[in-house]
Amino acid sequence: MSASVIIAERNGVRNMSFHRQFLRDDNHTVARLVPRHLRTITNEALGDGDEVKIGIVNAPDPTVLLAAAMSFDEYLDELTVAAALHQKVHNKPLKLVRLPNGVHVPADAEYAMWGRITAELDDEGPYVDITGTVDDVRQEPVIAIDGMYHRENPIFHALIPGEAEHKSLMGLPRAPTIKEAVSEVCECLDVHLTHGGCGWLSAIVKIKVQQENDAVKAIHAALDGHRSMKMVTVVDEDIDIEDPVRVEWAMATRWQPDKDTVILSNQKGSSLDPSRAKDGTTSKVGFDATIPLSYEREGFISVQ
Amino acid sequence: MSASVIIAERNGVRNMSFHRQFLRDDNHTVARLVPRHLRTITNEALGDGDEVKIGIVNAPDPTVLLAAAMSFDEYLDELTVAAALHQKVHNKPLKLVRLPNGVHVPADAEYAMWGRITAELDDEGPYVDITGTVDDVRQEPVIAIDGMYHRENPIFHALIPGEAEHKSLMGLPRAPTIKEAVSEVCECLDVHLTHGGCGWLSAIVKIKVQQENDAVKAIHAALDGHRSMKMVTVVDEDIDIEDPVRVEWAMATRWQPDKDTVILSNQKGSSLDPSRAKDGTTSKVGFDATIPLSYEREGFISVQ
Repeated sequence: MSASVIIAERNGVRNMSFHRQFLRDDNHTVARLVPRHLRTITNEALGDGDEVKIGIVNAPDPTVLLAAAMSFDEYLDELTVAAALHQKVHNKPLKLVRLPNGVHVPADAEYAMWGRITAELDDEGPYVDITGTVDDVRQEPVIAIDGMYHRENPIFHALIPGEAEHKSLMGLPRAPTIKEAVSEVCECLDVHLTHGGCGWLSAIVKIKVQQENDAVKAIHAALDGHRSMKMVTVVDEDIDIEDPVRVEWAMATRWQPDKDTVILSNQKGSSLDPSRAKDGTTSKVGFDATIPLSYEREGFISVQ
Repeated sequence: MSASVIIAERNGVRNMSFHRQFLRDDNHTVARLVPRHLRTITNEALGDGDEVKIGIVNAPDPTVLLAAAMSFDEYLDELTVAAALHQKVHNKPLKLVRLPNGVHVPADAEYAMWGRITAELDDEGPYVDITGTVDDVRQEPVIAIDGMYHRENPIFHALIPGEAEHKSLMGLPRAPTIKEAVSEVCECLDVHLTHGGCGWLSAIVKIKVQQENDAVKAIHAALDGHRSMKMVTVVDEDIDIEDPVRVEWAMATRWQPDKDTVILSNQKGSSLDPSRAKDGTTSKVGFDATIPLSYEREGFISVQ
């Protein structure tokens, strides 16, 4: 069920997001709600003695999948973003339908279910996540599914955990948020979330160094631009950031471990990293693998 | 000329090694002599007002090339090592011939030259080295070539700087010296000098962790086992050390930057790293990307 999109509406606020949904029985799933918008909405509802009315959509238009994968700092309605994307890509509006419980969902998906996030908790997992490791089994909210529409001969969209689609949908919207954050402190040319970092935990940031400390500022900005990130390497404009061999080459020839490393302890990071501390904190690192400003650039340029 | 092997004999000591030989004119080269055995022999000879008698061999049997690429701490005659390798590989002795200046060289090479390392210094370079960057031009000893034998229709063995053959001949003998050093402090399973580190500056060391601190001990031992190395990453037995993506994955999921990093300042390293300090020193780094001993191993194992 984890390739399905959950759409919640409460008190005039709408949120659309992906969540791991562990199938408990015929009409219940257990969903991991990390501390983002749907968790906040859920906590508020439960505090008021309410449940959260939701729609669950499987295999909608890809613009909906992409918009649902984004996380915004503000309460921004991802369904509105999907509609804008849909208009841009398909040159026509995204059609919505109203489910029996009042929640609006995109029309023309393969499945549309209606239900509730309840106050009950249950085991969520075991699950393999993007790291390819088995995640902790946690107590998470139970979702009751009360009914379902589907197409004739519907096709269910499943997703293999930890493989390309999972990493892409998670990581793809992060490159722009990192780029935006770094661009506020220096000239950011490109960002790549690495395969080794599972498209999530590690990024390479390409900048044009113009001032002393541009790279160090870029490191801090990049980590702010994607709070789950653990490792970031900053390189110059001549490095192919999608090639881990060239990135390591930049470290081998441009990076001095004792001067060009930023290490931050006791950080809030990703719960997906098995090496995090028992209290959930992690340390983070930034490598400045750009050419030192005080050196002649010539000696650092690859002639190959 | 840098694919040629220099064989020096003085006061009963013989040394065989590779050196960059910059062609100055028809019968002179300028050779970079880093502070190893041939440099010591040369300094001693010049101190005595002598020159060093040498043979220069081009395109000998590959066992000679391999032996010449090795650097031993003690004065060990690499030509004897070549002879042993030759016997093992070809099941017959390595034949030698005596050049007019008295130096013995392997027979059956394409070219065998005789000459002298003189007291004169000249520009050595410009040169591209294994990093693919242009190295400093230094003042180095001039070699005078006094005569030459060659085969009929000889084939000259040249080598493209910074490409596979160069990196292999330099780096290949280092994996065993690193493995030997690490094996003295813990169970070392394998060593790989990385492409990103140009087969020289960076290695991945695979160990079987049995005790607290095995990985940290392995880091120090590995750096001792290859003094030119700048970066070493220690991983568990389940990591493919030839795949930079899996090595980065191990760092992303098993390494805590603040606890699992060894940084050493003011080290003697490789002159090939353009980021070294003006005085030639460098800092070095070791990453312990093994599973923390106090954690359950299960959560770190890839199911993919």
